[in-house]
Amino acid sequence: MRPATIFPNPVDPVDKLKSALLAYSPATSTSEPRLASALKATFTQPGRLVRAQLLLRGSLLHGLPEKEALSLATAIEYFHLASLLFDDLPCMDNSMTRRGHPCLHQTHGEATTILTALALINRAYALAHDTLSHFSPIAQKAARGCLEKVLGAGGILEGQSRDLSYSAGPRSEREVLRVAVKKTGSLFLLSVYLPTMLGPANESEQRAVRALCVYWGLIYQVIDDLNDVLSASSDTGKSSGRDELLNRPNLAIAIGVPAARRRLIRLFELANRTIQKLSRDNRWSYLTEFHHTYFLEPVRQKALLDTRSAA
Amino acid sequence: MRPATIFPNPVDPVDKLKSALLAYSPATSTSEPRLASALKATFTQPGRLVRAQLLLRGSLLHGLPEKEALSLATAIEYFHLASLLFDDLPCMDNSMTRRGHPCLHQTHGEATTILTALALINRAYALAHDTLSHFSPIAQKAARGCLEKVLGAGGILEGQSRDLSYSAGPRSEREVLRVAVKKTGSLFLLSVYLPTMLGPANESEQRAVRALCVYWGLIYQVIDDLNDVLSASSDTGKSSGRDELLNRPNLAIAIGVPAARRRLIRLFELANRTIQKLSRDNRWSYLTEFHHTYFLEPVRQKALLDTRSAA
Repeated sequence: MRPATIFPNPVDPVDKLKSALLAYSPATSTSEPRLASALKATFTQPGRLVRAQLLLRGSLLHGLPEKEALSLATAIEYFHLASLLFDDLPCMDNSMTRRGHPCLHQTHGEATTILTALALINRAYALAHDTLSHFSPIAQKAARGCLEKVLGAGGILEGQSRDLSYSAGPRSEREVLRVAVKKTGSLFLLSVYLPTMLGPANESEQRAVRALCVYWGLIYQVIDDLNDVLSASSDTGKSSGRDELLNRPNLAIAIGVPAARRRLIRLFELANRTIQKLSRDNRWSYLTEFHHTYFLEPVRQKALLDTRSAA
Repeated sequence: MRPATIFPNPVDPVDKLKSALLAYSPATSTSEPRLASALKATFTQPGRLVRAQLLLRGSLLHGLPEKEALSLATAIEYFHLASLLFDDLPCMDNSMTRRGHPCLHQTHGEATTILTALALINRAYALAHDTLSHFSPIAQKAARGCLEKVLGAGGILEGQSRDLSYSAGPRSEREVLRVAVKKTGSLFLLSVYLPTMLGPANESEQRAVRALCVYWGLIYQVIDDLNDVLSASSDTGKSSGRDELLNRPNLAIAIGVPAARRRLIRLFELANRTIQKLSRDNRWSYLTEFHHTYFLEPVRQKALLDTRSAA
């Protein structure tokens, strides 16, 4: 599949991001061989670089020089890659495949996978803070706070923690959605909201951007949940039907497929309304493009919004 | 055992550090209960806070306000705690006990242990970078570089990676020492060297401090190796005799106990010479105190330097 892109020229920025992922790699010529090999393997299936593309585009539109924008985008992708490495571990989701290939812990062992993820996280913080150092102290402080909140015990780690403890709780719709906002919404927030802290976005725009990231986190997860229930393994590149097996939060299981579809339609309405509000200013048009390419088109192709079966 | 201390008033700073560890905890009132419980458990056995004490004392001597010094010391202790949580995991050292208590992965599971360590790391980076923001751009840049190097794929992660792959390599003395410098020396370097980047240390002092941290990393590890071979589990609070069992790097196994003792004597000579050089300036006297309290006294008490058996 060709990577989904939100750039006018679809090849160039994605290639630049792929080069940046390699160029900024924490591996050195004297690295321990197994760790170096694991880092290399991590970059050979870079995926669609969705979050990095969002951050790069947003950063450029908010006036960041390309070098800084690429460095910040690489940081976000490293955080994302690290989160996938941890999520797939036997003690977490116990996944066998990722992006159609064996997971890193299958090929390099659990210990090396953990060290690889930590190396990516350390480099990501360094890249992010180096980049932030070029901005005003006020912008730096706000962005540091955002990084901490989104990546910490009240952000993506809370999402993963609630995900893992879901089966012991009430398994409510509310808890499913909370996991989605924290676990999936967090990195969208970082990708879209962070650049707005470094440029001239106003407060009402920033509120709208934050709301949009919540809707996207939820939309992403409800699509994933429906796919998990409805699809075969070959379609998603991940192991499927696992949520029921592992008692993991899944809206389609919690409230049924028809109700989950209706919820998805409602979320698309909310996201559309927010995007319309933002698109009064041309700077935000990339969010509209991304929304269509990344969420609306695949959902239409798979007829996930087809509510005839929900009637 | 009363915590080893390097402060004139032995109670006050350690208590302040213990309070800071709790006060800066990444847990919030709405944290997922299992993650919050794991974080709480992590702080109930704070150990001797050796690295935090070193950093606090050095920072105060280099003119940092107490609030900033405590925040930076807490950050270093969080990095250290996280490294212990990862090291003890079944896929790493597979330890059962730490500081005389069951390891966190024994009481809270592996997944929660990983998330706890990541929460500590995220908070530690935030505390460190918030504190650094009060210094000049040049000092900030140097300190950021130090943080990245020491905590990254060329620092503590390389040490752990070489530690784990040791059995597959030549098991040479050189590799044992390299693991010790990277794995154990790294956090000493952060604790002692980082404050010198924020104050008025000159280059020759900074070189001496860096060398001392290498010796300390080696001394610490050779003591640990001798203890692992010679002691019973109750003495160290950790599982013992495990290095041979797990084919882990251990100098006393690689070159024999007598040769390891001679190597330890030589390292003490080198460290003493460096400390004498530094102690021409009173600011560095805390390193002499620490060296005696933390390394020399316990080694004398255990007669680890008694070379009659090595004759």
